Amino acid sequence: MVTGVDRERSAARIEREIGTLSGPDFTTSSEAIRRYAYTPEYRRTLDHFTTALQELGFTVSEDPLGTLVARNRPPGEPVFGVGSHCDSNRNGGRYDGTMGVVTALEVCRLSAENGIDLPLQVISFLEEEGSGFGQMLLGSRIMLQRVTEDDLRERFRAIDDGRSFWEHAEGAGYEPGRWRESIHVLDDLVGWIEMHIEQARVLQDTGKRIGIVNAIAGYVHADVRVQGRGDHAGATPMDLRLDPTTVLAGTVLELERLATAAGHGTVGTVGEIEVDPGLINAVAAEVRFSLDVRGPADERFQGVAREIAAFASAAAERRGMTAGYAERQTLPATALDGRIVAALEAAAAETGEPWTTMHSGAAHDTMCVAERVPSAMVFVPCRDGISHHPAEEADPADAALAAEIILQAIATLV
Amino acid sequence: MVTGVDRERSAARIEREIGTLSGPDFTTSSEAIRRYAYTPEYRRTLDHFTTALQELGFTVSEDPLGTLVARNRPPGEPVFGVGSHCDSNRNGGRYDGTMGVVTALEVCRLSAENGIDLPLQVISFLEEEGSGFGQMLLGSRIMLQRVTEDDLRERFRAIDDGRSFWEHAEGAGYEPGRWRESIHVLDDLVGWIEMHIEQARVLQDTGKRIGIVNAIAGYVHADVRVQGRGDHAGATPMDLRLDPTTVLAGTVLELERLATAAGHGTVGTVGEIEVDPGLINAVAAEVRFSLDVRGPADERFQGVAREIAAFASAAAERRGMTAGYAERQTLPATALDGRIVAALEAAAAETGEPWTTMHSGAAHDTMCVAERVPSAMVFVPCRDGISHHPAEEADPADAALAAEIILQAIATLV
Repeated sequence: MVTGVDRERSAARIEREIGTLSGPDFTTSSEAIRRYAYTPEYRRTLDHFTTALQELGFTVSEDPLGTLVARNRPPGEPVFGVGSHCDSNRNGGRYDGTMGVVTALEVCRLSAENGIDLPLQVISFLEEEGSGFGQMLLGSRIMLQRVTEDDLRERFRAIDDGRSFWEHAEGAGYEPGRWRESIHVLDDLVGWIEMHIEQARVLQDTGKRIGIVNAIAGYVHADVRVQGRGDHAGATPMDLRLDPTTVLAGTVLELERLATAAGHGTVGTVGEIEVDPGLINAVAAEVRFSLDVRGPADERFQGVAREIAAFASAAAERRGMTAGYAERQTLPATALDGRIVAALEAAAAETGEPWTTMHSGAAHDTMCVAERVPSAMVFVPCRDGISHHPAEEADPADAALAAEIILQAIATLV
Repeated sequence: MVTGVDRERSAARIEREIGTLSGPDFTTSSEAIRRYAYTPEYRRTLDHFTTALQELGFTVSEDPLGTLVARNRPPGEPVFGVGSHCDSNRNGGRYDGTMGVVTALEVCRLSAENGIDLPLQVISFLEEEGSGFGQMLLGSRIMLQRVTEDDLRERFRAIDDGRSFWEHAEGAGYEPGRWRESIHVLDDLVGWIEMHIEQARVLQDTGKRIGIVNAIAGYVHADVRVQGRGDHAGATPMDLRLDPTTVLAGTVLELERLATAAGHGTVGTVGEIEVDPGLINAVAAEVRFSLDVRGPADERFQGVAREIAAFASAAAERRGMTAGYAERQTLPATALDGRIVAALEAAAAETGEPWTTMHSGAAHDTMCVAERVPSAMVFVPCRDGISHHPAEEADPADAALAAEIILQAIATLV
C-alpha cells in the first residue's frame, strides 16, 4: 500500500508538462496540436521525455523505428509497462496520447519520490494516430509484426509528400531494416497499463473521474467507390442520371441507422468523401468515401460493416451503377486482463473518488500490446467527449488521480 | 433561297477541323480536352480560327480580353452573328463549344462558296465553361457588364494558381482596364445564332437531327456549408454526434426528389463536396457542398433552390447543427427571338430531315447576347447526352446540316 501521494503536486506537474508540450516547438500547426513521426516537433517531444526520465535515473533508448523506451532495471529483469503515444491527430488537442505519456512519467516520479522504486518501463509509441502515413496504431502494429516489409517499404506513404515510411524513417536516422527487432521492447514486461483520455462523454455525463477499461472496441476501416457517369449538370434530365452522390447519400444515412440499431457501443462514420470531377456544373462520375465501423462486440460491428457494404452495392445497382468495397484494415475487439483490471478497480475504490468499469470506443496501442502482455487501461474524462480537435480538454487533477491508482495497482501486482 | 449546298463536303470539313483541334497542341490534358483562357493551347486555337477566317477575307480582331471577332463588313455596317466558345470543361470532350465555332466557320465558307456573301460576324467567346477561373459564361458576362471591376481585379481567381483574372489577362497581353469596351462587339449585330451540341439525350432518343432552341434554362449556383462538431469517430456514441455528413446526405436525396417533382426540365445537382477535416477516423466538423439548380421555367427552378436551402437549414437545425446558404450566381431563364426561331424552323423543315423545337437545359453565352441582340440557337445530338466528359461524341454530318439551316435562315433574315 503506497501512502502519502500528494495529488495536488502531481496535478501541477502534469499540467506543466502538458503546457510545455502544447507550445510552438512541439506542434507543426498554430491552430491545433499537429505532431507526427519524423518531424522536428516530434523529435523535440521525445527529447523532452528523455531528459525527464533520465533525471529519474531511467535508461532511455529508442527502438529501430523511434519508439521511446525508458526503464529503471537492466535488460532481462521483469518490469511493468506504462505509457501511451505522443503523436497527435492532424487537427488534434493537447491531451490525446500525450497526457498518457505524461501520466506514465508521473507514475515514475511518484514511485521514485515515495521510495518504493517499482520496476517500470515507459513506452511512447510511434504514429498511433496515423497523421504521418495514414496508418493508425502504426508503431504498435509494427512492434507486433502486424505489417509486412512491403507495407513499410512501399505501401505506407507520407500524407505530406507521398514518400515511403521506410524513406522517412531512414531520413530521420532510424534503421527500418531492423523493424522486426521492435518486438523485443515487450520482452521483459509482466504487465502494461495505458492511461488515456476517454474521447467520449460517458465519464463526464455519469460524474465519474476514472474509467477502468476492460475491453477495447475493434474496428473495420474500408473504402467504398461508386462508379456513376459524369454528365452535364444542366442538360441531363433527372431520370437519366447515374449520379454516384445519391448512393453516397443513401449509404451515409443507412450507416447511421444500422450502427444505432446494432447498439452495444457500435458506431459508424463516413469521414472522407472525394467527388470526381468535383465541379459545380458536372454530375459526378465517381465518388469515394471511407467507412469506420467500431464496437466492443465483434459480431455487432463486423455485422454492420458487412451490411453497409451490401447496402451500398445494392443501392448502386438499383440505380444502374456499381459500388466497390475495399477493406483497409480490420481489428477485432480486445478483452483486457482480468487480474490487472481487478487491481485497478481495487486501487480506484481505495481513493474514494467516483469511478466505473467500461469499454473503450477508440482504438489504442494497448490492443496490440495485449496480444503478448497482460494489459489494461485507465480513462479520465474529457470535456463533452470532444477529441481529435483543438477544443479537446481534460483535467490534470484526474490524470494525477489516475497516476496514483496505476501506482497502487502496480505495487500490488509486482 | 440558298441552293447547291454540299452537305458531305461540309461534314468532311467540320470533321477535319474538330480533329485538328483535338490534337495535343490544343489541349493541356492527354486524357480529355482541357483548354481555357490564356493558356498556349487556347492561344493556338484562336490562331487556328483567325487563319481560316482571314482566308475567307474576314477581318479578325480580339476585344480587350481576348474574345475573337471576325467580320466581312466594315465597322458600322449591319452583320448577323454566328459563333460559340472554344474553351472546354476541364474534363471535356471535343465538341462542346468548339463544334459551334467550327460550324460558324462553315456557315462563312458556305456563304462565300455559294456566292451569296451574307454580312456575317463570327464571335468566339472567352471562358464559357469556367475552367480557368471557376466562373461560367465569363466572357459574355463581361461583355454584357454583368460583372464588376472588383470581380475581375480581385474576386475571380485562377483555379490553377490563385492569381486574379486581371493579372492573367495582362500576362497574356490583353488590356483588362478596357473591359467595358467589350460590349461594342455586339454593336452592329442584327441577330445572333449559336450552334451547340445538345448535352442531353432528347434529340437522340426522339430520333431528331436538329433542335431549334426557343428558350434557355436559367440557373441558381450556390453553396451550403454545414457546421457540425469534429469528434473522435470511434468513441463518440451515435446519439451524441453532430455529424454534418448526415445533413449533406439528406439534402442530396431531397434535391433529387424536389427537382424531379418540379418537372418541366428542372434539374438539381450536388457536384462539389468538401469534408473538413476529411479523415477516416474523425467525425466531420464541417461539410461544404455546391448546388446547381436549373430549368427553363423561372418559378420552378428558383422554387427548388429556395426549398432546398430551407430544407438543408431545417435538417441541420433538427440535428443541433447549422447550415448556411450562399448564392454564387442566379441567371433567369432566357426566352429566344420568335422571328429568328421561326426562320430556323422554316429552314429546318425545308431540309426534309427530322427536327424539333426545344429548350436548352444547359447555359450558353446566348443567354447574355440575347439581352441586346435578337437571338436563337440550334442543337445537334450528342451520343447518350454525354458531355463535359472525354466520351462526348457528335456527328459532323449533323453539324453540316445545322450550318445549312443557319445559312438559309440568315439569308431570309438579312
